[in-house]
Order: sequence, then C-alpha cells, then structure tokens
Amino acid sequence: MKKYKVIFLPDQKQVEVNEGTRLIEAGKEAGVYLNSLCGGEGVCGKCRVRIIKGKAKIDNNSVAFFTKEEIEKGYVLACQTGIREDLEILIPPESRLEEEQILSESLENKQKTWRESPPIHYSEPDWVSLHKRPSDPASLFEPLTSKIYLELPRPTIDDNIPDTGRIVRELRKKVKYPSYEIALPCLKDLFLKIRGSDWKITATLSRHNGIGQILQIEEGDTADKNYGAAVDVGTTTVVVQLVDLKTGRVIGVEGNHNQQAHYGEDVLSRIAYVCGRGSLDLLQKAVIENINVLIQTLAREKGIRSEDITSMVAAGNTTMSHILLGLMPCSIRDDPYVPTVDFYPPVSAKEVGIHINPQGIIQVLPSIASYIGGDTVAGVLACNMADRPETTCLIDIGTNGEIVIGNNEWMLSCSASAGPAFEGGDTKWGMRATRGAIEKVKIVDGKVLYETIGKAKPRGICGSGLIDLIYELAKNRILEIDARYSPSLQERRIVQGENGMEYIVAFPEETETGEALTVAQTDIDNIMRSKAAIFAAIKSLIDYAGLSFNQLERIYVAGGFGNYLNIEKAVGIGLLPDIPRECIEFVGNSSLMGARMALLSYHVFEKAIGISQSITNIELSKFALFADEYMASLYLPHIDRERLFPSVKY
Amino acid sequence: MKKYKVIFLPDQKQVEVNEGTRLIEAGKEAGVYLNSLCGGEGVCGKCRVRIIKGKAKIDNNSVAFFTKEEIEKGYVLACQTGIREDLEILIPPESRLEEEQILSESLENKQKTWRESPPIHYSEPDWVSLHKRPSDPASLFEPLTSKIYLELPRPTIDDNIPDTGRIVRELRKKVKYPSYEIALPCLKDLFLKIRGSDWKITATLSRHNGIGQILQIEEGDTADKNYGAAVDVGTTTVVVQLVDLKTGRVIGVEGNHNQQAHYGEDVLSRIAYVCGRGSLDLLQKAVIENINVLIQTLAREKGIRSEDITSMVAAGNTTMSHILLGLMPCSIRDDPYVPTVDFYPPVSAKEVGIHINPQGIIQVLPSIASYIGGDTVAGVLACNMADRPETTCLIDIGTNGEIVIGNNEWMLSCSASAGPAFEGGDTKWGMRATRGAIEKVKIVDGKVLYETIGKAKPRGICGSGLIDLIYELAKNRILEIDARYSPSLQERRIVQGENGMEYIVAFPEETETGEALTVAQTDIDNIMRSKAAIFAAIKSLIDYAGLSFNQLERIYVAGGFGNYLNIEKAVGIGLLPDIPRECIEFVGNSSLMGARMALLSYHVFEKAIGISQSITNIELSKFALFADEYMASLYLPHIDRERLFPSVKY
Repeated sequence: MKKYKVIFLPDQKQVEVNEGTRLIEAGKEAGVYLNSLCGGEGVCGKCRVRIIKGKAKIDNNSVAFFTKEEIEKGYVLACQTGIREDLEILIPPESRLEEEQILSESLENKQKTWRESPPIHYSEPDWVSLHKRPSDPASLFEPLTSKIYLELPRPTIDDNIPDTGRIVRELRKKVKYPSYEIALPCLKDLFLKIRGSDWKITATLSRHNGIGQILQIEEGDTADKNYGAAVDVGTTTVVVQLVDLKTGRVIGVEGNHNQQAHYGEDVLSRIAYVCGRGSLDLLQKAVIENINVLIQTLAREKGIRSEDITSMVAAGNTTMSHILLGLMPCSIRDDPYVPTVDFYPPVSAKEVGIHINPQGIIQVLPSIASYIGGDTVAGVLACNMADRPETTCLIDIGTNGEIVIGNNEWMLSCSASAGPAFEGGDTKWGMRATRGAIEKVKIVDGKVLYETIGKAKPRGICGSGLIDLIYELAKNRILEIDARYSPSLQERRIVQGENGMEYIVAFPEETETGEALTVAQTDIDNIMRSKAAIFAAIKSLIDYAGLSFNQLERIYVAGGFGNYLNIEKAVGIGLLPDIPRECIEFVGNSSLMGARMALLSYHVFEKAIGISQSITNIELSKFALFADEYMASLYLPHIDRERLFPSVKY
Repeated sequence: MKKYKVIFLPDQKQVEVNEGTRLIEAGKEAGVYLNSLCGGEGVCGKCRVRIIKGKAKIDNNSVAFFTKEEIEKGYVLACQTGIREDLEILIPPESRLEEEQILSESLENKQKTWRESPPIHYSEPDWVSLHKRPSDPASLFEPLTSKIYLELPRPTIDDNIPDTGRIVRELRKKVKYPSYEIALPCLKDLFLKIRGSDWKITATLSRHNGIGQILQIEEGDTADKNYGAAVDVGTTTVVVQLVDLKTGRVIGVEGNHNQQAHYGEDVLSRIAYVCGRGSLDLLQKAVIENINVLIQTLAREKGIRSEDITSMVAAGNTTMSHILLGLMPCSIRDDPYVPTVDFYPPVSAKEVGIHINPQGIIQVLPSIASYIGGDTVAGVLACNMADRPETTCLIDIGTNGEIVIGNNEWMLSCSASAGPAFEGGDTKWGMRATRGAIEKVKIVDGKVLYETIGKAKPRGICGSGLIDLIYELAKNRILEIDARYSPSLQERRIVQGENGMEYIVAFPEETETGEALTVAQTDIDNIMRSKAAIFAAIKSLIDYAGLSFNQLERIYVAGGFGNYLNIEKAVGIGLLPDIPRECIEFVGNSSLMGARMALLSYHVFEKAIGISQSITNIELSKFALFADEYMASLYLPHIDRERLFPSVKY
C-alpha cells in the first residue's frame, strides 16, 4: 500500500500514513488532536482544517459546513477526508484541542504549593498497620480497588468448603474485613478460572459499607497490574490522571475540552438544554466520551490494558455529577435549588459506559448543595481543611466562585455566580490558560512586558494575565479607582474602539493572528463584576461566621489559572483578602487532587462523605448585605481600601 | 371470525376458540396444561396430542416426532396445530402437566403438622417493636422487601436538601435503619416522579448488610400492593407460593414439573449434561421459564401486576441453586465434591430474567455442602431446629436423603444417595404423587384395598403407596424378612413376570391403562436399597453424634409423599427409626415453608445464613461402618430387629 507524508501546521508535526487514511486519524498519529464532537461521523463540523499544499477533494456532505471562500481556500472536514497524496495541513485555532496547562497539579507547582502534603509515595501498600499521620491528608493508603494474589490450597475430602469460601479464607489472611461478598458475574466462570490456573488467582477487591466486595477473579498473579483513574469533570475541561494503585504513583495525566460545551457554555445553559428541547442522554454520552478518550489515550501511552483500570473517582460540580450519572439536573436551576442527590451511589463501569474494567467501580464525590459540588469537597480534602483545628478558607474561582470556611469543628460554604471572565469568557481576547495565552503582565515605563504559555505568540489572555493586567493598569494610573480608563490619559496604547476606550496589550505585529490584542472598558467591567462577586461572597461568609480575615490561618486559592497566579496582584485588585501573602496559597486543580486522594484511600472517600454532610451551605440570597458588599467591591481594590486593604498601595 | 369447539380428554374440558387458534393455546384456555419445553416453537416435541374427532393437518416440520402409526392415529403437536373445525383431543399421559398433590404444605396438612408454628398471620407489620416469641420460627416479621408510603414536605429555600435526602428523612420516621442507599436506576427519573406525584410517593425498601436499600420509587400510595414469591426449586417439581408481603398471607400456590427433566432425570445426569455436551444456559433458562410461568399464572389468577412482586426467595439443592443463578455445577459431582458457592449473592430479577419487578430482589437460600442444599436449610428453618435446646432430627427423603441432627448448640448433616424409588423412579409402576397414584394400601384377607390421589383409576403407585405396600406384604408374609417373595406362596396375585415374581396390586380391569399394576421382585429390591441407604445414613449420623435414637426429642420427615405418609408403616419397613410414633412428624414440603419464612423475615433469612455456616456436614464415605449399616438395613425391618425395632411386629 502506498504511503504519504502529511505535515500539520502550525506545530510542524509530521506523519507518514497509508493511502486512504483519514486526516483525523493521521492527526491523532502525529499527536495533533482535533475537535471531533461527533466522533468522526461528519455531522458536527468541528474538525475543520485547511489544506495548504497538495489536494484532497471535499466530501459532498461536508460542503454545508463551509462558505464558498473557505472551500476555495481548501477547507475540508478532517474526518471526511482521505489522504491520496502528500499534504500540508493548517489547523485553525477553533479546531485545535490544545493541551491544557491547567491540567493538574503540575510537578513544579506541586513542589511549591504542597509543602505540607508531599506527593503520595509508597513502596508497598501496608494493609495491616495503617500509618496515620495527622495533617497528612492521604496517609491512609487503601485504594478503592486492590488486587490480592492468592494461592489456594486444593480441596480434599476433609477440606471441601466451596470455592468462594476457599478464596475468602485466604483473603482473610491478607486483608481484614468483617465479611466478603462476591458479585454474580464474578461467580459465573469461577469454577473454570480457579481450576484453569492451578489454584493460583488474583482477586480484585473493593469495599462497600465496610464489607469486602470481590469484583473480579483473574488467573495467576496479576497483583502488580492495578490502576485507577482520578477525574476532574469540569464544566469547561475534563482531566484524567492515571494512577498506579499498587504504589499510589501518578503515571500520566491528560485533559480535553468538555464536549458538552457544544450544547451550552456554562452549567445553566446546559441545564436549560437538557430540560428544554435537548436530551440528557446526549450530554451524558458527551462527557463519558471525553473521559473514555482520555483513559484510552493514557492507557495506550503507558502500555496498560484498560481492563486493568479497576476504579475511578470523579469530582465535579453538582450539575456535572448529575449528568455524568444520567440524572436529571433540572431542579438545580429552579428556586429553591434542589438537586436529586448529594451522595452518588457507587456504580459499575459497565452501568455508565466508562471503558475500564466493566466490573470496575465508578465513584462520584458527594455534593454539598446545588451549587457546591464534589469538586469543592475534593478541594476541602486536598487542603485537609476538615481535620485541622485552625480555621482556613478555600476559594475556588470559576464561573461560579465557591468558598468554604471552617475547621475540624464547623464548616460553612457559599457559591457566587461570578461569570466566566477569569476563565476566558466575557472578554474579547479572553481565553483559557492554554498555549499562546498571556499569563503574566508587567507594565514598565509604558512598555508592556508579558509572558505566554508555551512561549508562543500571543493568541489571547487568560485569567492570571487579566489579574496582572488590571493590577498593572491600576498601578500605572491608567485605570482609576473606579476601574475606568482615565479620560485625561495621553498614551499611545489607549485607543478608541467600537465599545469605548481600549488598551492595546499587544500590537498586531506581536500576535499570532496579526490583530491587536486589546482590553476594552467593557472587558474591564466584566472582570470587575467577577472579582467583586467573589470578594463580596468571601466577605459575606466571613461576616456570617463572625470572623475577620486575619483570623484565617490560611487561604487556599483554586481555579483555572494554569500554573501561575500572582498572589500579590490578586490581592492588589481586591480579588483576595488582604492578609499576609505567605498565608495565601495557590493550589491549582484541587478538585483533581482530592479525587486522586479519594481514589487512593477508602478512608479519605469516607471522609468526603462526612465533609459533604457536615458543611452548612449558605444561600447568598439570605445575606442581607451581600448586594452592598458587591457594590463596595466594584473598586480597585475596594471602596473601603483603608480598612480592608491597608497594605495595598499602587 | 369463526368459532370452534374443542373438547380435551380425558378430563372432558371444553372451550370455544377463534378459527386458527393453536391447540396449545386452546388447552391453556380450557385449563389443560401441556408439556411445552420449547415454549411452543415446535422443536421439543413434548406437546403430543391425539385428535379423536375432527381433522387437523399435521405440520410438515412435526412429522419427525411421530411414527407412521401415530400419524395415522391422529397424533399432532399441539403447538403447531391450528384449529379449523370442532375437535376432540386426547392428551396422552406423557403430555400432561398434572397438578402436583405434593405442592406445598396444603391446608389440612398444615393444621395437622404445624401445631407449634401456626400459619403466619399479621394484621399490620410492626416495624419498631419486633415481637419475638421463642420457638416461633417466623415471629420477626420484616419482609425482604416492603413498601412505605411517604408524603414529602416541599422544599423551600430554608430546607433545600436534595430529593434523596428528603426521602430518607421521611423514611427514618417510619423505618429505623442506620443508613440508606438508592440504586442508580431508581434515581434516573426521580426528579419527575416526585414532582409529578405532588410529593407523595411510595418507596420499595430492602435491606442488605443492615443498610436500607431503596429499590423503587412509585408515584402515589401503592403500599398495599406488595407481593413476594417463595419458590421450592426441586429437581423434579418447581412450586411457587405467592405471598402478600403486607400481611404475610399466602394468596396462591402453583407447581409444575422442572423442565430441566428433559436434559436428565436427576441431579447427576443434569450436571453431566451441563458439563459434557450440553449447555448451562439451556438448563438455567428451563427452570427460569418454570418459575416465570408459575408466577405469571398466579399473578393473572389473583389479579396482581407482576411489577408489584418485589422479592423472591428460592430454596433448592446445591445443584439446582447453582443452575438457577447460572453457575457451573461441575465440581459438585467430582471428588472432593466442592460447589462454587455456599452463600448466593442477592441478585436483581432483571439480572437472572425472573419476570417480577426488574429491580426486585432474588435471594437463594444458602447451601451447606454439595449435597446438602438450601432446601435442607429451609427445612431446618421450618422445623425451628436451630433455636431449641432439644435435639431433633430432619429426614428429607428424595433421590438424595438428607439428614440433619442437632439443636441450638450444634448441628450435623449428611446426605445419602438413595435413588428415586420413593419418588416414582426405579420401579415399573412407580410414579410421583400426582392424580391417579396409589397412595394408600392395605391387604386384608388377600384383598388389596387402595386409595388413589384424586380418586381416579390407578395409573401407578407413589412413594407413600410403596411404603404401605411393602409393609402390608411383609405383614401378610408375602415378603420374607430378606424382602424376597416367599417362594412357597400360593396366591393368585403372585405371577411369574419377565423379571421373576410379581405381585399384582391392581388387576387390568381396575387400572386406567387396562394393564395389571404389578410390583416385581426387582422393584422391591430397588425400594429396599433406597430405604436401607436412608436408614443407614440416619443410624450413622446418630452414632457419629454419640447419641441413641431415643435421645431425639422429635423426628421431622419431609419429602415428596404428597399429603400422606403412614408413619407406623414407614417405621414398620425400617425406613424411619423406632421411636414413639407421636414424636415423628410428617412435614411435607418443608423447603417451600422455609423459603416463605425467609421471604417474610430478613431476620429469618439471616438465620438461614447462620445455619448454613454452623452445620457440620459429614461425608458418608468417612463413616467406616456405613457399608455395614447399609447391609444390615436390607431387611424388613432390619437384621437387628430386636435391638433397633423392638416395637415392630408383623
């Protein structure tokens, strides 16, 4: 069969494939991932690419996705286009599935922020003596599923207990549970498996209500092949960590964009879709496909069989958790905001269609309320807030800002609708923390110094970049205290745009698109609304608890800020409270970390249930003064700077 | 559409049906049940009938099931024959599904034998104060599934816990479990159900490991529609009792022949079929079809929806229990006789294909060993043996004789391969205790007086009839002490048959078939081997326990003897030990009664698990003296009559 060479731009990735291979497959082989919502059926039109060199005929069914100009320029759908000669392909930004920088607690960051809780590392699980250290949130190593190798004594006329009794008798010598249960599917061919393997087997074990559950019997010794998946089911991005359950080590991480986005950007619009004209099934399938693709990719990369992945813990907000399990989320959006469940029952992988071991356990972290989900519970776990006597605070900044305050005796939470400004929405050049996003900004002598993710040409600006920018604009008096562009300003970067004044962050010659990257007054207003909503929520919860900010021993900040958040500047714009900077810690994706901790410890998972039940959620609508706090926060840093932000000086 | 009249012989049942109706359907409508293993597909050839008057064309595909003579005589398959004119049909015995007399503890019998434990009768289940009376085996009324009606308070902003939390909060006021779980299928449309029913719902609840399991949510108040099925899965017959779980009352009972019989008469031949050329799947489907037909019949008769049947408890021997759940029984027959499981996990009805509520619970009573199954555990439950300080004995006479001896401190069991002589096998005219079977025999002055089941003409002789007959033959000196026909005998009923001497029980003019009903020496030999195996097993177990017979406070006799067993005569032939007759009780189908008790009480079900784990099973091959005991028992009543059967005098 003939072979052809395909080069993918802008990354210059190259691959040689057989004649007739579809472009989308060639992309995958080259490590270029394309948007493909419909799974390559040619119906979603998301995998648009442009042929730069060489020729390929556009499929008749695809023409409706393009304008005449686009067809002339060489646009095709990658999933509908077979390769018949050497090609050079340009992937336009909208078709790229960029690697997320936000993915997880990245290594360098983990070192920095997780001083108190070092990465989990065990040489061997120790079942009998559980070494518990206080303030180590993941010390009770007991993965949700474990594999135990057993050599069964052969039955004799004096010892002719049933096969299952024989298994349990040996298991008891290694794991102490009060009793054991074996699921029916596991019993069907047990007779053959035991005898076919010379009475040497490996049992996959989980635990439910304290009772050992045998999920699987394998022939021979497979105890070293046991993996789990920790999943952060975000509204925007889905991230999977593959974890070796024998050692607790993370062996890989992958993320992609939540394919539900095609049915609505945020949680409310997706609920509206499901409960209006749309279908729950479609959204459930979309996110399950997200997870399956990530798991499959990781398994292939690491040379692991998917059947050896025996458990998965997912953390997500309440809506994401409901949809993942196929539960109607409709009542979440309607006053009085009641979800169907808070504690999600464990289900088998087969039951929800996750492509790991069909008998594998899927556990979704419990929610607290309609707008405080398992991702927040995961954050509380990751920061070990519920075990310490000191009062700490978790601020998770996203489209909703979730705030938890408390200690080992009490915990309060609330959720503020902040809007997507810090996640790349609501602003013209806003983008998520992916390749090409400006994540750091400094203004020195009228010059704008910035850094982009991946050192690429700027494609936009992400949350941490916006915080830096607003701070720098305020410090340089380009923005007034009321966050409006100074009208008297003489500055070549200030121009008059369609929607009022704009500040040029990067000139056309600097950017990838060749257009100027600007921040208009309307953009600033949107960011200010987000930061005001979050700060007002923190302030309201602190007041509700009868505390002041300096009584907080520590503030943990989580959210989609990539690897970087300048704490000083976040306080400087009035997003975070003005407490000593060393008491504020950016923890990145605490949802994923909490999910992994629960995956690695049944005890931590049980603690999650306890946390979800013990946190008192406060509806912001109950705070009489919330609106006042919000209005007072629409300033840089705050209308009451002297009392609330004494250390902030521009 | 034209109507035709069909008369079914020999029962003279008549029905009018539409043109084209199949004979098998017409039979069902007339209340004539035909053997139909394949479910009417025309492939098993079991529904043979003969057309006596009128005509119907034999189906071309059916001819292979008949000889030329049969076709000429008018034989057809009822399932393949459409009705085109008035017909008269003769159903030959082999095609009849006779009503079993053995079915269950019939009313008259229950009154007689269950003095100590009156039929379960409760006006209302009482959840809180469980009235426990010692020696009442079914006092702890708590059905495996119950329905609880709940009126939920509507959520408000001050009380916006999730739907499930709201359900559990109300449930707790009515049922006290430490915690509750709700299965995923039940959560899927919970949102709609609760709101669609004005917050008035009924929860179906079961219990697993002490934790409440919500299986189903129904709209409105359905608490009075909750039923369960108790099933005796016998090797030969399957019996289902339909029970009202709200009151504990039995509302109907039906039985049929285990359709597995087509793949082998006894347990060993069925194991051979499954593990040799055959398929487990086929046998599992056969018995599940048995149960489904019975449940469907009962539900229709009583006007009950099958979805309102929410639980089922089955009792069967170890092989039947394995096959029912689709577990390979192969190791049961091979030394050292190890089954796959002893404790069967609870499964959903959907999982095994039982046509009750798909989420309904199927629970199989635990086994003790390969040849002591859940039917024996049920018997121990029914006789309340495990709760009393007095030592009692249960003898279940079937193809295997199972014997249990013990009290509330210890229990021993053993199983003897007795052969099917008492169940109608191994003898020329032997039959099960169904219509037309001779069940009582007396010989007075050379005349044979007998009674048949249903007062019909004799078609054969069942177990209890054979016991009577042997006793009477011995008493009248027609049989010698070594169970051989007296050679010197001058008697018109003694004739020389193909296989030696035969005794005519009924002359040709008396029987249904017009042939003489005889018992040959070979038949006597087979019966003697059965009775010797059972008595030797009882004697061995008593010796093993270091007891003597008169230390038994009571002997319970169970088995397929219909409604009748003459205790005096059973002792007289040396089948049962010679203890005071009022201490021997015939309990009929104790397996079905135990299954019903477990269905009506979670506590009794838990007790069954305890029983199965605490009984020590003794392999007869370990009794050095078993062979000697067996040889000594091949006499009437026993070679050591003076010591072991002092009260027996012919």
